[in-house]
Amino acid sequence: MSLIATAQNMQFDAPLPLQSGASICQYALSFETYGTLNADKSNAVLICHALNASHHVAGVYAGQDRSEGWWDNMIGPGKAVDTNRFFVIGVNNLGSCFGSTGPMHVNPDSPSGQVYGADFPVVTVEDWVNAQARLLDQLGIQKLAVVMGGSLGGMQALSWTLQYPERVAHAVVVASAPNLTAENIAFNEVARRAIVTDPDFHGGHFYQHGVIPKRGLRIARMIGHITYLSDDVMNEKFGRRLRDAVAQELAETAGNGRTFGDYKYSTQDVEFQIESYLRYQGDKFAEYFDANTYLLITRALDYFDPARKFGGDLSQALAHASCKFLLVSFTTDWRFSPKRSREIVKALLDNKRDVSYAEIDAPHGHDAFLLDDPRYMGVVSSYFDSIAKELQP
Amino acid sequence: MSLIATAQNMQFDAPLPLQSGASICQYALSFETYGTLNADKSNAVLICHALNASHHVAGVYAGQDRSEGWWDNMIGPGKAVDTNRFFVIGVNNLGSCFGSTGPMHVNPDSPSGQVYGADFPVVTVEDWVNAQARLLDQLGIQKLAVVMGGSLGGMQALSWTLQYPERVAHAVVVASAPNLTAENIAFNEVARRAIVTDPDFHGGHFYQHGVIPKRGLRIARMIGHITYLSDDVMNEKFGRRLRDAVAQELAETAGNGRTFGDYKYSTQDVEFQIESYLRYQGDKFAEYFDANTYLLITRALDYFDPARKFGGDLSQALAHASCKFLLVSFTTDWRFSPKRSREIVKALLDNKRDVSYAEIDAPHGHDAFLLDDPRYMGVVSSYFDSIAKELQP
Repeated sequence: MSLIATAQNMQFDAPLPLQSGASICQYALSFETYGTLNADKSNAVLICHALNASHHVAGVYAGQDRSEGWWDNMIGPGKAVDTNRFFVIGVNNLGSCFGSTGPMHVNPDSPSGQVYGADFPVVTVEDWVNAQARLLDQLGIQKLAVVMGGSLGGMQALSWTLQYPERVAHAVVVASAPNLTAENIAFNEVARRAIVTDPDFHGGHFYQHGVIPKRGLRIARMIGHITYLSDDVMNEKFGRRLRDAVAQELAETAGNGRTFGDYKYSTQDVEFQIESYLRYQGDKFAEYFDANTYLLITRALDYFDPARKFGGDLSQALAHASCKFLLVSFTTDWRFSPKRSREIVKALLDNKRDVSYAEIDAPHGHDAFLLDDPRYMGVVSSYFDSIAKELQP
Repeated sequence: MSLIATAQNMQFDAPLPLQSGASICQYALSFETYGTLNADKSNAVLICHALNASHHVAGVYAGQDRSEGWWDNMIGPGKAVDTNRFFVIGVNNLGSCFGSTGPMHVNPDSPSGQVYGADFPVVTVEDWVNAQARLLDQLGIQKLAVVMGGSLGGMQALSWTLQYPERVAHAVVVASAPNLTAENIAFNEVARRAIVTDPDFHGGHFYQHGVIPKRGLRIARMIGHITYLSDDVMNEKFGRRLRDAVAQELAETAGNGRTFGDYKYSTQDVEFQIESYLRYQGDKFAEYFDANTYLLITRALDYFDPARKFGGDLSQALAHASCKFLLVSFTTDWRFSPKRSREIVKALLDNKRDVSYAEIDAPHGHDAFLLDDPRYMGVVSSYFDSIAKELQP
């Protein structure tokens, strides 16, 4: 029996000061909860989302087929993060486009009632964590049993342990990094340039023009997808297979020296399956994702760098964390490679923190953090089991 | 004293049949030669170029400062490929935009005298090799001492050994691959989509509209640049440094917990040096490179796959090669990794061919094939020394 999810909204009237010096007022956060908060409010788990996900983490919406939350394989009754034992909270970040206040919402400072568009203030991982902390205040949760996230979500989990060390008992940081490399920033920048230079972007105020910079969004998503997959899994899933699979099969069975179903010899048509896949992913994404949100979230990734104010010394930065940690990385993840997780592990060990670390040998690249892998699920499950035991009176 | 280069043009009137089934007639190839062809015409070296290079391989143009050929560090008097001993030929490929017939030239089939644009026929590595062979015929060269190239140029060198085994004594294949992986094709496809979906592309007939799809070309080049560099060298050259270097320096010297020269908090302005570098590279490229050429050349890369007609069996495919080989790869090249070169080496050894292979430990990624590295230059230099000795009567 599936978990039934219900999206909720929390309105905040007190302005939230942002890292940039600006602030945002009259904002709302969309969130969902699963399971039951126990009497001493000690079993709360906050799930932080990555680039294109939302507060809809687990379960399905009533009457909506195929509406599973993005981490439904991980979170639910009897799953690794067991909602029979934990009270799990998913929250959509500020600036996103899935319910919380973002660029598509009316800017209260606009005299003519325009939406924010490009005027939405730049938000950082630290700002998101502050907003999430206010949500927990409203829910009456003083301390999290666990803050957990993958990729950009892992950065938020890590930042929680630094911004609110006294409010976190455990942090689970999956497929993440202590900051972006130059290459990571470079991919973000190309995606942003594709969006910003799309003539339909109109400096970020495309809503008034009744258009959407879909060309740019498509390119951004295609680039993203390449970095989410490993070279190996791409070769396995697509290889050099042509889109016209029948033609391909004929070619393969034709034998030495003779080919049927040959190339189409076109520069603009789809020829290989990988092209078809990327175009499809790009088209789908451009239908639902907001262009300004894409810019904001990739910038939040670029800016995250807790070691920055310690001259790059991550050990010094993480000295402020006091909780216990589980870190997980995946061998073929070249976006946030195991090396990056090991940097975090080392910095925590330098501070004699309690750290578990699993490097999962998985072929799927960065995407692995969203997929079922028995060892991955096993590691997370065991970790949460031991936390559940800690919680028992 | 620098080598003085002079570009030449050779006109071909007999139609060249292409792999696609089409043919091209009345075409010209631009080329340059350096050094002197010996009496028995046995010291010719053909250099094949990669994506955005040309026939201008070595030397400088008279009176033009900073006009060095793209492989001038490798080729010239006393250099690894010594033009005092070898007669070196650089040739611009069909479909390119640096002199040989390409999409910017008038289509002889157009009644109104329009340029080819998107109607330029799709050309393959094999087609280029056939065109190069005709050029050698005209130059009276029956057999090459060496055919040599890096990256896509290496694919042409490899294809020479299969299409004209009797006309090649040695092949030098640098930083290349026996075909593209799905990831390689994916990057090409994103770049092509950026160009084709630029509203200034006009289906490839933008010349008539007096515009250039510069947005798309910029994105294409930015993506390319990321794949040419290693993660390590990007971190070393740019890291997370802000463009405003003075502000950055202040931040670094400010010490624990206090930052001056902080982030600008902008989603559209340049913030990091790597962004500035990529934008500059993109802008520069969009000024001189033809969009249709970009599509053609990336497609030639996608299509190259000598093992294809042997059911993917590279050893069977390379059985047709009879020359001696030098292969070179670079450890941090993730575009065409050493693994890909080793596939070629293995297939040649399966056929008991004479193969030398050097895997150079260099930090620069794919770009390393264009850079000075004493071990790399040493390997090539020794190989050419031994060829020069073979040539002595």
